[in-house]
Amino acid sequence: MPRYADCLVVHAHLFTMEGTGVGYRADGAVAVRGDAIADVGPTSRLQAEFEAEEILDARGCAVLPGLIDAHMHTPLAIVRGVAQDVAHWMQQALAPYSRHITPAAALAGTRLNVVEALKAGTTTMVDYARPLPGWAEIYDQVGVRARLSPTINALPAGGMAGWKLGDLYPLDEGSGEAALDAAVAFSEDWHEAADGRITVMLGPQAPDMLSREQLLKVKSIAQRQGLMIHMHVAQGDREIDQMLQRYGQRTPAFLDDLRYLDDQLLAVHLTEATDPEAELIARRGVRMVLCSGSIGIIDGIVPPAQVFRRAGGWVALGSDQPSGNNCSNLFNEMKLTALFNKIKFRDPTVMPAWEVLRMATIEGARAVGLGDTIGSLVAGKQADLIVIDLVAPQLSPALQTPIRNIVPNLVYAASGHEVRDVMVAGRLLMRHRQLLTVDEPAVVADAQREAEAIAGRVAADPVHSQLALLEPMAAGQL
Amino acid sequence: MPRYADCLVVHAHLFTMEGTGVGYRADGAVAVRGDAIADVGPTSRLQAEFEAEEILDARGCAVLPGLIDAHMHTPLAIVRGVAQDVAHWMQQALAPYSRHITPAAALAGTRLNVVEALKAGTTTMVDYARPLPGWAEIYDQVGVRARLSPTINALPAGGMAGWKLGDLYPLDEGSGEAALDAAVAFSEDWHEAADGRITVMLGPQAPDMLSREQLLKVKSIAQRQGLMIHMHVAQGDREIDQMLQRYGQRTPAFLDDLRYLDDQLLAVHLTEATDPEAELIARRGVRMVLCSGSIGIIDGIVPPAQVFRRAGGWVALGSDQPSGNNCSNLFNEMKLTALFNKIKFRDPTVMPAWEVLRMATIEGARAVGLGDTIGSLVAGKQADLIVIDLVAPQLSPALQTPIRNIVPNLVYAASGHEVRDVMVAGRLLMRHRQLLTVDEPAVVADAQREAEAIAGRVAADPVHSQLALLEPMAAGQL
Repeated sequence: MPRYADCLVVHAHLFTMEGTGVGYRADGAVAVRGDAIADVGPTSRLQAEFEAEEILDARGCAVLPGLIDAHMHTPLAIVRGVAQDVAHWMQQALAPYSRHITPAAALAGTRLNVVEALKAGTTTMVDYARPLPGWAEIYDQVGVRARLSPTINALPAGGMAGWKLGDLYPLDEGSGEAALDAAVAFSEDWHEAADGRITVMLGPQAPDMLSREQLLKVKSIAQRQGLMIHMHVAQGDREIDQMLQRYGQRTPAFLDDLRYLDDQLLAVHLTEATDPEAELIARRGVRMVLCSGSIGIIDGIVPPAQVFRRAGGWVALGSDQPSGNNCSNLFNEMKLTALFNKIKFRDPTVMPAWEVLRMATIEGARAVGLGDTIGSLVAGKQADLIVIDLVAPQLSPALQTPIRNIVPNLVYAASGHEVRDVMVAGRLLMRHRQLLTVDEPAVVADAQREAEAIAGRVAADPVHSQLALLEPMAAGQL
Repeated sequence: MPRYADCLVVHAHLFTMEGTGVGYRADGAVAVRGDAIADVGPTSRLQAEFEAEEILDARGCAVLPGLIDAHMHTPLAIVRGVAQDVAHWMQQALAPYSRHITPAAALAGTRLNVVEALKAGTTTMVDYARPLPGWAEIYDQVGVRARLSPTINALPAGGMAGWKLGDLYPLDEGSGEAALDAAVAFSEDWHEAADGRITVMLGPQAPDMLSREQLLKVKSIAQRQGLMIHMHVAQGDREIDQMLQRYGQRTPAFLDDLRYLDDQLLAVHLTEATDPEAELIARRGVRMVLCSGSIGIIDGIVPPAQVFRRAGGWVALGSDQPSGNNCSNLFNEMKLTALFNKIKFRDPTVMPAWEVLRMATIEGARAVGLGDTIGSLVAGKQADLIVIDLVAPQLSPALQTPIRNIVPNLVYAASGHEVRDVMVAGRLLMRHRQLLTVDEPAVVADAQREAEAIAGRVAADPVHSQLALLEPMAAGQL
């Protein structure tokens, strides 16, 4: 008796990411039923066993699990490209813009970033932002998988206007409480929403941006509700300085004393963590997000992901924010991660292609707490997959033996636009480069309008004289 | 009386690269007549002054000079992706393949690499290869600009089979002479061919691969015939070791004594040059090619381009060989160059976007000796230009003021597939992503066939047991 499938993906170079490598199968097939993978195997067997509503021919294509972007700030796509090549990107470049991002502009940024990432094969987006009404709805409507992390901090509502570099931040308990309440309310609305496709993490912004008491409160709520915590950790010398001033401890020791370092924590960046600190954090079971492109551009630093992984920790990749990193594209992050680490260790064997591909798929899934749901193509997992056209000249030729060159080419030569089709939870969101659930030109046009309005407000605001990039503008370099 | 243009490119965000920055003009236009630029200015003026055969509407697009890839080994595209993540890429990964590349396969590789680069906006290709019959003809037919450098070395015709790492290479004067003769004959056929679009450089492979006498002979011929010399210099510790053994000098001192260091020399890599050596080479007027992606992947090293430029030298970018770097894409090289150098100096202000854009255009043109011909959009220069669609989500929004974000986005977010149209010497070679002078699917299919045949020969050759990547193959990592 034939089995039934909604969709049968056939004749693929299948990279299931099962096991400890890339799980390659020649002429492989994936049977999808509902939102899940019903079976994975040789095309011949699945074609014989399944009666399928739809056949997706992946001849000449690689099929992989959808990619996971474990740290995004999608609203900031609305100010893409305004904060590079400066010494203090946040203060001297982004801040004069970000204060003029209206809620409508933030949502336009999220839509733009989601479209961009989806077209580059990202199917799971771990977004960290202020929980505006309409934010989660974008993910619901577009149909990608999301882990949404509402920002929780105790910075004064009026901003940091009076604060001077080197001083302790003012922390405002009331702001912190309000943000925490909003995050909890958001999680009640959206955790496990959209048939489980949308989930929530709690997002204390950084250990220097909430009081110790509020950090503990977040931890206790997270434990009670079974939510992960998504937090920037050791993200800059500014943070370390704040921690030393306030507590006399660097971030890792402080968090360890607070019993914050466990497998419930998704720790982003670790830019300033020493190797022993990174090892400690990994050994405690914490998961790391490595934002290679972003930290490379804004700090010129390669975070200690290699040490973290060697200590047994799981590392996911993240694109961070397009005001700095400029793009949200896991192909970009995979390549930069492999290359930056080869350079850091002056060793071409460090972080080979298959390892970074695992970070973007199965290891990333485990890191963000979705290891049982996504990240590999196996029966029972969610049907999140991408089809990549290998006939693009930069991915040709595709060789099988004695050396298969497809994974190195996907990591070192692909740019993401070779992704032809994208499926999330069994639903095709892109087919032959056409988005099916969102009006791409409208999203881009709306973002352009909102961004121009922001730029107009920035130009009218005296604060714009602080922009470090005014000098290269005047010099004709932009 | 109206002036006549064959093509008027209008309504562009024009980056002329004139002056010391990026030469931006809002709503700019370029008038093309024959193979040259007749005028550059505001769209309104040029539309009023010119009667044009064809109008190319570049609304919503950036228009730039075509990009210059200053160092390629195009035949090796036929074995793309077989030499990454290994300690000794040439010996343990590439060599077992390269010995099985037939002339037909080499030409198929060149065609594939030219198509790939052209689609990513590269209009000038400085190719370094064995001067096979049919090689230059590919450039002639496709219509891109080429600087072709036939390989000259004195390595034994039978290969390096008997040679052991650490020993001096055997140099074979007869092989060297034959290669030099072939290069001179090639230059007589092709220098200034195709209306000047194809030119020739002499290509002594590296200072350790020819005798001192043959190096001097190459230099003398180059001077007499007004040809530049395109040579790998200080490209690896192997070379430095050979130079020390043979001459008791490191490469830069040896070449300086030989009076090889002057503005006739295009020096590739400088991987192993110390900072003082790089400064010396720059001060002598030598031009450098920086292959960031390739050297990053195969050596984990960031060559001393920053020091070289600070010493007044011109630096061009090169993609090197797709067996190692995997792709030939100047957008990739621009981004990697900016990021690698930020990391090298742990300083986000190092190599800002506009600087690497200049390296890919006007500075690159000067470095390869074509500064008067290409590299900027000014009247009288050759009409080599590219039109880039800024409406791609990853390049949106495009902002003008107070900060123009287009150049950072082109460097940090573009991947090359946003290039819509490509013109070389006044002729459109790509329009709306469709190549007009070459059959892309046929080129890809031919390359696939040739590559599979190579792989078959490698598999049948006992030497393939030396492949370092057999181990990750067996482990399911490829």
